[in-house]
Amino acid sequence: MQRLGRHLLVELFDCAPDILNDLEAVQTILLAAARRAQASIVGSAFHQFSRFRLSGVVVMSGSLLSVHTWSEHQYAADIFSRGEVFRPDVVVESVIAALGAQRVSVLEVQRGIFPTSLAHGVVLGARSAPATYQYGKVTGQPTGLG
Amino acid sequence: MQRLGRHLLVELFDCAPDILNDLEAVQTILLAAARRAQASIVGSAFHQFSRFRLSGVVVMSGSLLSVHTWSEHQYAADIFSRGEVFRPDVVVESVIAALGAQRVSVLEVQRGIFPTSLAHGVVLGARSAPATYQYGKVTGQPTGLG
Repeated sequence: MQRLGRHLLVELFDCAPDILNDLEAVQTILLAAARRAQASIVGSAFHQFSRFRLSGVVVMSGSLLSVHTWSEHQYAADIFSRGEVFRPDVVVESVIAALGAQRVSVLEVQRGIFPTSLAHGVVLGARSAPATYQYGKVTGQPTGLG
Repeated sequence: MQRLGRHLLVELFDCAPDILNDLEAVQTILLAAARRAQASIVGSAFHQFSRFRLSGVVVMSGSLLSVHTWSEHQYAADIFSRGEVFRPDVVVESVIAALGAQRVSVLEVQRGIFPTSLAHGVVLGARSAPATYQYGKVTGQPTGLG
């Protein structure tokens, strides 16, 4: 089985709302996380849409790191993809700590699987009850971290 | 159940390799797809890493559209998130057609679900055998489009 990329869907709950509202702070956190993983940063774009919402993305050589915040819910979603050239777990842990998240869920999706199947996901967060679906079969039960 | 965002993981197989290699063409396609969905574009970043690989991202008000290509495999992965303010299906169809993909898989993941569970996915592509997992239960069987 060939896999072209890893894609981590990270859900961060109960974050520090003052950080989630702060475009400059979020930008600093994401860029620092990328550098900490020794990623080569080739571009970035950050934008605050409203008092409570901002989006940011860092394009790295071989990976993408993005964040979308809903600070009124103390929630942020992070995405890391094509993480072949650096350790995405290092980035995830860095962002979790910086945003002060109290609850975290990480869903890893294998991207670009050849030749038979396409979507292939493993819930990383719920280590006691891992879930895998691949090749059209569902095994295990995905759960939140509670 | 409250959901903060929709996230579409799009896998595009058997794309036209000459397009996937062309940074300017991919940039034009993504920006056109965003505009077609009447999204407000606030930033973008595109980068060609090698002869066969490029990444691009368009940050829109409320959404993110990105592409990562492996042209030697005629494969591209697209991501659309926080698609509350425009129709992500319009964007997906536009990109599929422009890249000449012959096989497509779309996995929709609901992001930011409160209060009990986190990851919640529905395979959209395999309409005859839809799969849903939510709240720690697995129902149905996700399959590729074959």
